[in-house]
Amino acid sequence: MRPQKIIAKKRDGEELSASEIETFIDGICDGSWADYQISAMAMAMVIRGLNEAEQDALTNAMLHSGEVLDFSAIAAAKGDKHSTGGVGDKTSLIIAPVVAACGVAVPMISGRGLGHTGGTLDKLEAIPGYNVNLTSSEFHRIIEKCGFAMAGQTADIVPADKKLYALRDATATVPCIPLIVASIMSKKLAEGLDALVLDVKTGSGAFMREFEDSRALALALVRTGTNFGVKTEAVISDMSQPLGQYVGNAVEVYECMNILRGEADASAAMTTDLSLELAARLLVLANAAGSIDEARIRAEEKLANGEAFECFRQNVELQGGDVRVCDEPTSLLDRELVRMYVSAPSNGYVSSIDTLAIGNSICSTGGGRVRAEDTIDHSVGLECLVKIGTRVSEGEPLAILSCRAGTKEMVVKQFADAYTIADEDVVIPELVRAVISRH
Amino acid sequence: MRPQKIIAKKRDGEELSASEIETFIDGICDGSWADYQISAMAMAMVIRGLNEAEQDALTNAMLHSGEVLDFSAIAAAKGDKHSTGGVGDKTSLIIAPVVAACGVAVPMISGRGLGHTGGTLDKLEAIPGYNVNLTSSEFHRIIEKCGFAMAGQTADIVPADKKLYALRDATATVPCIPLIVASIMSKKLAEGLDALVLDVKTGSGAFMREFEDSRALALALVRTGTNFGVKTEAVISDMSQPLGQYVGNAVEVYECMNILRGEADASAAMTTDLSLELAARLLVLANAAGSIDEARIRAEEKLANGEAFECFRQNVELQGGDVRVCDEPTSLLDRELVRMYVSAPSNGYVSSIDTLAIGNSICSTGGGRVRAEDTIDHSVGLECLVKIGTRVSEGEPLAILSCRAGTKEMVVKQFADAYTIADEDVVIPELVRAVISRH
Repeated sequence: MRPQKIIAKKRDGEELSASEIETFIDGICDGSWADYQISAMAMAMVIRGLNEAEQDALTNAMLHSGEVLDFSAIAAAKGDKHSTGGVGDKTSLIIAPVVAACGVAVPMISGRGLGHTGGTLDKLEAIPGYNVNLTSSEFHRIIEKCGFAMAGQTADIVPADKKLYALRDATATVPCIPLIVASIMSKKLAEGLDALVLDVKTGSGAFMREFEDSRALALALVRTGTNFGVKTEAVISDMSQPLGQYVGNAVEVYECMNILRGEADASAAMTTDLSLELAARLLVLANAAGSIDEARIRAEEKLANGEAFECFRQNVELQGGDVRVCDEPTSLLDRELVRMYVSAPSNGYVSSIDTLAIGNSICSTGGGRVRAEDTIDHSVGLECLVKIGTRVSEGEPLAILSCRAGTKEMVVKQFADAYTIADEDVVIPELVRAVISRH
Repeated sequence: MRPQKIIAKKRDGEELSASEIETFIDGICDGSWADYQISAMAMAMVIRGLNEAEQDALTNAMLHSGEVLDFSAIAAAKGDKHSTGGVGDKTSLIIAPVVAACGVAVPMISGRGLGHTGGTLDKLEAIPGYNVNLTSSEFHRIIEKCGFAMAGQTADIVPADKKLYALRDATATVPCIPLIVASIMSKKLAEGLDALVLDVKTGSGAFMREFEDSRALALALVRTGTNFGVKTEAVISDMSQPLGQYVGNAVEVYECMNILRGEADASAAMTTDLSLELAARLLVLANAAGSIDEARIRAEEKLANGEAFECFRQNVELQGGDVRVCDEPTSLLDRELVRMYVSAPSNGYVSSIDTLAIGNSICSTGGGRVRAEDTIDHSVGLECLVKIGTRVSEGEPLAILSCRAGTKEMVVKQFADAYTIADEDVVIPELVRAVISRH
């Protein structure tokens, strides 16, 4: 069937059959559909939408376009967490060892940061020597030894996604729930999971800023996971301010090491809280606990008794990383950096934080990528000293930027401009806005 | 401005500004927009549509993306005819010399055939030696000598159109009135005309089969021409059967030579009729006649007194063609061809003719192009012996196919299948279905 014929159907708002959708995805993989045909189809899908059957068919076609991991040799239940991306969003580094310490295997395939959001792989690479490019057998072996492994996507897993995403990014066809769901879920389903918890962000630093959009995405993700036989739940969490204490790569690992070692500052509490919430939900979905309360207690224990830390330390060793970052977390902090203070322009309460601007400013300081091919300065980062609702005095530091010598004052101003100070007390956003399950 | 930003506006159904549309067209010409971005935008335009201001801005941007011809040195009014394409549609070869003989200059830039419809350039190239690749100064010189010239589009005229059309063809984004209008009108406006008559076809052999679609296209074309200061009128003419006596390249020129010489068969009457109708309307628009009736009489005179023929003969000579085709039209008929009869399967009245199928069958016999790069056998063709409403007896020839030896019987069957024979008398379609003017 000629691409034009299938494109024309979606152009005219008709429903595509599973085999037509398969032809599209196969065409992406084997090159029989040209880039301009893929893009025209993506635009037709964005404007006309896909119904539930089409969305599942798209997810299925993408999933089966490549390798599906087989963990049947591992007896434990397999679970994973996926986040839609945020600023300072480092929970994977806590959740994976906590859940693994509770006996659920975590085969975590992560991505890199692009634009204002960070990526788990970039954070892990702030650990000297840490290898995120694992072969399938290394991945298996590490999971069997320490309960979790963290790696980048291989070219064999959902090969259609990389090409389709790059074209969508260049053709303004990213914001489309069915395409987002197929992209996320095909990769997660390829991990061969039993349970999946999704952290769908909402607010100024999230991909979906409006709660209703985040909710619609969460519903579609949970529905899809469930349709494919994976126990799936979504937490809609607040991204109207950076999560926890630090934003940056090495500094976020530093924050996590402090949490795992029981040495974290109070300002890291949000990170701990959200990590435990997501870990507990994943444990229940994976049948490792009977209730959220029970799961939460177990997760807290593993954190408190150092088992989660030991699990992470073992993982770092197995993945070739320098365990000094575990034993002396301050080794992650680059002493050559300059500290610049972001100060409050007036007295009052922090009423809102433009989290997108914070992410973009970290990016422009070298801590993130504007383009996929950019290299990252893992050391630079921001320490967030205040949260929404904190009372501040004029001149009081809101945040401390650790950056390279020569960084312009203008950059500090960009960070300062992201904070709004109000005269009156403000409503502090709930960290967990909603939980979406399908029962 | 990044392409994504402009694409996103149209994706979301917003109106584009003239400068955004210009950025899009410039991006096509200078390569700063990738093919996949152009295609995504085309799809968004097809689904979301363009309003009148956007459509004019698109036409204007395309027009000014290349060379605009300047005929200010020619004192006479300049007029042209454009057809949306049909089967056996050869009126340009009559209209140009008739109108030129009446004192209106015709700078006709034509296209080639693709798919089931023929192209004027291909017909002209059935004349040995005839050169359709004219430089701008040759084009001027020939118009000044014989009143009209016929050439192909140079790369300098509306350069955006060729690339955009090729992508639209490959991405199912052809059927969209604003894009069709911009493509047609930008090229016609680049001819620097005073008057333009459009022949919008409707019926089984037309690009727009439904009358209402043809009417919507005609209205948009006339509105655009008028907005750009060209006196424009559209005739919606019947394409529910091949026009006139012949379908093919050399045989259509043969039919026109017979008409211009006053020696045509009665079955060529439709060609003469439609040509005179369009010529008369063009003469009125170009102020060369005060009324349609007066213009029609003048046009008929120029045909009857041989002036139009002389004008055509002179043009053939000036464009390097062999004038023997004018003096001995039978020289156009290839004696090596085989004649195969397409016979009526039963007694009755010809009730409908699948004109698209006739065009496609001529194509598959070698007389047209399936792909743009195909070569054409100018000699092959079909003589149409019956029209809709003709009473036929079983076995009586409906048409005669002149083709290469070895052509399969199956091809004859394809032609025969295009004719439907009914028991009862049928309604004969009007040749001119409607006239669209803007007063």
